[in-house]
Amino acid sequence: MSHRIITISREFGSGGRTIGRETAVKLGLPCYDAELIEKLEEATGLSREYIAERGEYASYGSWLSSAFSDRDCSGHSVQDDLWCVQRQVILELAGNGPCVIVGRCADYILRGKAECLNIFIYSDMAKRAKRIVEQYGVRDNSPEKRLRDRDKRRAAYYHFYTGVKWGVVQNYHAALNSGALGMATCAEMIARLYDKKFCES
Amino acid sequence: MSHRIITISREFGSGGRTIGRETAVKLGLPCYDAELIEKLEEATGLSREYIAERGEYASYGSWLSSAFSDRDCSGHSVQDDLWCVQRQVILELAGNGPCVIVGRCADYILRGKAECLNIFIYSDMAKRAKRIVEQYGVRDNSPEKRLRDRDKRRAAYYHFYTGVKWGVVQNYHAALNSGALGMATCAEMIARLYDKKFCES
Repeated sequence: MSHRIITISREFGSGGRTIGRETAVKLGLPCYDAELIEKLEEATGLSREYIAERGEYASYGSWLSSAFSDRDCSGHSVQDDLWCVQRQVILELAGNGPCVIVGRCADYILRGKAECLNIFIYSDMAKRAKRIVEQYGVRDNSPEKRLRDRDKRRAAYYHFYTGVKWGVVQNYHAALNSGALGMATCAEMIARLYDKKFCES
Repeated sequence: MSHRIITISREFGSGGRTIGRETAVKLGLPCYDAELIEKLEEATGLSREYIAERGEYASYGSWLSSAFSDRDCSGHSVQDDLWCVQRQVILELAGNGPCVIVGRCADYILRGKAECLNIFIYSDMAKRAKRIVEQYGVRDNSPEKRLRDRDKRRAAYYHFYTGVKWGVVQNYHAALNSGALGMATCAEMIARLYDKKFCES
């Protein structure tokens, strides 16, 4: 496999998904995010909600206790099965041709298996809070608490399955502040980096 | 003061200084790094070596003990004086017109005082080690040990004078991996971000 893949990791509410889609449009590539969930739904028979929630986030409550609570006698959980299928689907998609993959530990899964441009998208708390309220509405918990919770669970999930700390800048080619730069600028920069890395050398 | 300034913070050996210079050439701006040392030499009468070493790095040994050991009865040290003059010189340079400033806590000093594009340059340990051996030669300590030591002292210095943790990506507009992207690409990206942020809006 030697296809050129852009992976986008992102803080919750930073607009990474939108930036991934915009980048893909600019480069004429497919972007896998919702499509990935569809493929996983098809492959596992699990519900879209379960996949969206458990394919990227550690469970609510104590991650370690819940990670083990639904394990069978072999120590294997439904979430572990989902991880294995997710890994397989990501490898297949990356094998099909150049694309953009948002989230789901694709940066780690494709390490050494495809030519990747790994990007991390982040933003300040105030802009992310505003964005998730606009997008998902008001909830019981404050948007700041929801953001902290989501980031924490995403980091725990990533670390549990990869052994690597999530969001450490040294693991990416570049990290872009979507709140300060704007989403369109981020997409333009990523597309430019893709051209520089893969098309001009 | 409303000039548009690029500040470049960098891991030791990541080529941040070279990238700063290349960016400045691309944009036709002055770049302050060695020039800043000259100005500080003139203003303080301190040696070039002292300024280079103590204007960005915590002292060898225990930072806290040495930070206090050369203090007079008012608790003020030579390094504190250097910090004050350095801060003043950076504010003056930023007041003179658009420029690139490498290191020396300029991102923090200019916060709220100029329109800044704050960039963090980093790279993997192996590439940085190769670079410092090419640039500064072989020493008694391994290049990896020298890098860890320099980064640690730079972080300690930054935190001591600003109260802010150094190298936390959320404090920058963008972070670029010079080892993975190449220094020319980093300079091009920064110049493009400058144009997008300041010249196209």
